[in-house]
Amino acid sequence: MSTDNRPIGVFDSGVGGLTAVSELRRILPNEDIVYLGDTARVPYGTKSRETILRYAEQDYDFLKNLDVKFTIAACGTVSSVMVGENAFAPDFCTGVIQPTVEAACNASKNKKIGVIATSASIRSGCYERLIKQISPETDVYSKSCPMFVPLVENGYTYRGCEAAAAFAREYLIPLKSEGIDTLILGCTHYPLLSQTIRDVVGNDVSLISSGAEAARYAKKLLGESGLLNRKSEAGILKLYCTDSAELFRESAAHFIDLEGIEIEKCSLR
Amino acid sequence: MSTDNRPIGVFDSGVGGLTAVSELRRILPNEDIVYLGDTARVPYGTKSRETILRYAEQDYDFLKNLDVKFTIAACGTVSSVMVGENAFAPDFCTGVIQPTVEAACNASKNKKIGVIATSASIRSGCYERLIKQISPETDVYSKSCPMFVPLVENGYTYRGCEAAAAFAREYLIPLKSEGIDTLILGCTHYPLLSQTIRDVVGNDVSLISSGAEAARYAKKLLGESGLLNRKSEAGILKLYCTDSAELFRESAAHFIDLEGIEIEKCSLR
Repeated sequence: MSTDNRPIGVFDSGVGGLTAVSELRRILPNEDIVYLGDTARVPYGTKSRETILRYAEQDYDFLKNLDVKFTIAACGTVSSVMVGENAFAPDFCTGVIQPTVEAACNASKNKKIGVIATSASIRSGCYERLIKQISPETDVYSKSCPMFVPLVENGYTYRGCEAAAAFAREYLIPLKSEGIDTLILGCTHYPLLSQTIRDVVGNDVSLISSGAEAARYAKKLLGESGLLNRKSEAGILKLYCTDSAELFRESAAHFIDLEGIEIEKCSLR
Repeated sequence: MSTDNRPIGVFDSGVGGLTAVSELRRILPNEDIVYLGDTARVPYGTKSRETILRYAEQDYDFLKNLDVKFTIAACGTVSSVMVGENAFAPDFCTGVIQPTVEAACNASKNKKIGVIATSASIRSGCYERLIKQISPETDVYSKSCPMFVPLVENGYTYRGCEAAAAFAREYLIPLKSEGIDTLILGCTHYPLLSQTIRDVVGNDVSLISSGAEAARYAKKLLGESGLLNRKSEAGILKLYCTDSAELFRESAAHFIDLEGIEIEKCSLR
């Protein structure tokens, strides 16, 4: 049986991509993973397409130099500007858009899908285009939610947070009113607000997590390509960030258990 | 009478420093001003001291190369890490801390001053240290307000914004309870939330705007040094940013009237 023991690379502007890492570790517990969060320049979602592409290329190159076998751009914003973009020729690389849109089209029964993401992602129109390509009869309702990333990064993810609930109502009631039965969480930070989001859209709307879908897609692709790690011991996770490792540890702790996990500050170029 | 017709330089991580520009144009209408907003890496306030200093040095050098006669670091975060820092030898440069603290100490009658600013500024402890130096008997109550910058950058500055009011209550009620009579708005974004802040602290608390105080301090220093511009026509304002000029125009419009003002994208290094 073919095998490849090199690590899987995952990158994001900050800590949001750890939702993909979390799912990867659940479904591929023996894989080594290296993660990069570009915390010296976070967030990406409010910046221009050109700037985001430049940053993403540097992130990708950093992981390539660590000899990863496959890369997940676990950032909705990066993924949205990468679609149809050959700027940095990503072989064995996936963003979150394709897997997330496929899962949403499978989940939706009434063919009304909502999409929430950063301003840059929504501005790119990539979710809507891809949904229409896979399922032309589906209606798509999109909304940028610029306050969700700062809410998550500052820990306002607990149920009953008054301000988070106010933003969730502002962003989501218009989508709910359109009768959506499926909602794409198009930014990898958003699953941490699932409960707040559920309180507005109700339990009958399927929430599709872009980070988790990208992880499942990676597993499928690695299996088909004979690139899975066949070792029996647990995989090792190593985290890199571009700003202080100590600050990264604080934010990342909202996403995964960091016990015994090494965090190293690095430089990009 | 001595004169110097070179422009005044002003920089910030984003658009917040325009509160200083606005006051400069009011009190020194004949001065030319060049402004730099490092929008490709905004915000600074959540980042580490080391990273902020590196960015600030690049911002300062960019303006120096435009032959400015004086520079205002119109960013509370940058100013807070610059205090006591000779990293980039800023001759004829001021941050916002010293002028703001002096104004607050003059304004406070009961010697109870509140300080709100970004996480990095509050972590630095610089406001508290400087207040104690000028007025040892004053009690200082500090609070970081990490959600205020995203609220301003996304336009949630109107009175009656439910979420902004919820954060204002969370951050400010503890300061109000201590009986402060003066509140330092230690981040140049915060004056746009003055009404929301007033609704919590009441009308009997003096609000000290760091951007405006830095502008007044610059006027005094330029006058004393014989560096004022003595021309009679209105000064020219030129804006630079490191991300898209179009996105900058959108955010900056919340702060100043942009009619006829040129905005140019630039690179730092």
